[in-house]
Amino acid sequence: MAMDGYRGFLGLLVSALLVGFLSVLFALVWVLHYREGLGWDGGSLEFNWHPVLAVTGFVFIQGIAIIVYRLPWTWKCSKLLMKSIHAGLNAVAAILAIIAVVAVFDYHSVQRIPHMYSLHSWVGLTAVILYVLQLVLGLFIFLLPWAPLSLRAVVMPIHVYSGLLLFGTVIATVLMGVTEKLFFVLKDPTPYHSLPPEGVFTNTLGLLILVFGALIFWIVTRPQWKRPKEPGCTLLQPNGGATEGMEGAIAASSGDDTDKADAELSSEGAARKRTFGLDETGQRSTM
Amino acid sequence: MAMDGYRGFLGLLVSALLVGFLSVLFALVWVLHYREGLGWDGGSLEFNWHPVLAVTGFVFIQGIAIIVYRLPWTWKCSKLLMKSIHAGLNAVAAILAIIAVVAVFDYHSVQRIPHMYSLHSWVGLTAVILYVLQLVLGLFIFLLPWAPLSLRAVVMPIHVYSGLLLFGTVIATVLMGVTEKLFFVLKDPTPYHSLPPEGVFTNTLGLLILVFGALIFWIVTRPQWKRPKEPGCTLLQPNGGATEGMEGAIAASSGDDTDKADAELSSEGAARKRTFGLDETGQRSTM
Repeated sequence: MAMDGYRGFLGLLVSALLVGFLSVLFALVWVLHYREGLGWDGGSLEFNWHPVLAVTGFVFIQGIAIIVYRLPWTWKCSKLLMKSIHAGLNAVAAILAIIAVVAVFDYHSVQRIPHMYSLHSWVGLTAVILYVLQLVLGLFIFLLPWAPLSLRAVVMPIHVYSGLLLFGTVIATVLMGVTEKLFFVLKDPTPYHSLPPEGVFTNTLGLLILVFGALIFWIVTRPQWKRPKEPGCTLLQPNGGATEGMEGAIAASSGDDTDKADAELSSEGAARKRTFGLDETGQRSTM
Repeated sequence: MAMDGYRGFLGLLVSALLVGFLSVLFALVWVLHYREGLGWDGGSLEFNWHPVLAVTGFVFIQGIAIIVYRLPWTWKCSKLLMKSIHAGLNAVAAILAIIAVVAVFDYHSVQRIPHMYSLHSWVGLTAVILYVLQLVLGLFIFLLPWAPLSLRAVVMPIHVYSGLLLFGTVIATVLMGVTEKLFFVLKDPTPYHSLPPEGVFTNTLGLLILVFGALIFWIVTRPQWKRPKEPGCTLLQPNGGATEGMEGAIAASSGDDTDKADAELSSEGAARKRTFGLDETGQRSTM
């Protein structure tokens, strides 16, 4: 990566981390300062874990998991290590998302509130289920060594597409959740439409989450910030084309120790030029 | 495009059109059957234009505008014509979105409801403003003949990225709007949490819009469904690379009569193989 591109990447990465941290902080301040705090009591304290865990796990950690292959200082690490980190972060995100769902189901049960009636709940539960499915399929197809390379090459574009689609859907779900909650809790004498401090603060949380999503989406779709292919990873396809040619879009490329499990909304254009700061050939280990 | 890929494209296009039409239909049935109908009276009838126009213009027409370069039977049309259609559809979408916003502002004013307090309104109005900005910048940089090719090459990845980001943000905004409205109007004796028919119906509208977005996102990110480059369009860049190399990601390529104004989440990989059904050289006119 040329020094210019590196600085640009660092700037955006720091921005994304900052906005992501701020989102988590805002979610915490929301429930600790404006709401009743946190607890596991079947009441509001338990419900409050729902937004905190959703923002921390399902938004922030998932976002970082998406861009982890892009960090240039990891390019000398083995692909297996990076895949494990990608899978591990997504697994943590999934666990936090599941606990977030459990918290709200438990709260509803104790409070005798019906389950699963809102659009937020329909989309959110679907997203959690598909996210776990994505994680399990990813584990078996890309992380464990059994899947044939041809299968990996076919599945990779779908994996990347569905990963980004889920990330976007999760953000939309969080925005719906914020909307629901504010209409529930901001009543007289400070209704939501009078724009009390809690309304302004939590609207801002929603904006921060949107900006975080936008930054992750930009970082992951810049072709020049992709993890470089390991040398000699071209894989012949059944149709006679090389894997390289299937790439692009939210696309693919696969190989046992050489596949690119990151989001490849990118190309390997003819003039792609990187000046690597790393000792490429020497330090990169394989699976 | 090979016959196989062509069938796949057609299947997805028909699905997207079907789901998009259904979304518009559901929005209409929602306000005509479950709500009070349409009118311009400063009351609910006027408000009801808001969801109808948002879904029709800002979701459906914008979605079609995004994929219009992908239609293989347009590949023999001039790039200028296709750009005009892309810009025209986006302009129609912008006008409908603005009328949708006017309807709700007028409704709020007449009913003495405060403006701009909800997260939905903050994100939605920002999206409309940025969408108009995107349209104006797109007009001056890509449609009108004045901008230098180097500027087009630099701006194209940003144009494609911000276009897709806005499309996703609009969908998230619509889902927040559905959430808001259902909590407002579904009160005793049929509150939202009792899941009355209107709740189920309008939740389904939300799901349809999400599926429409997912289909558009898939279609626009398949590299093999991109409008082929006109021959001889390689543009040398200041840094010495060819434009072709800047492509990929949500990326770029530009040229007076040859730029690709569609969403290029794709690559021009070495093995990209298309068998064109069209007489490429003969029928394609230039700007």
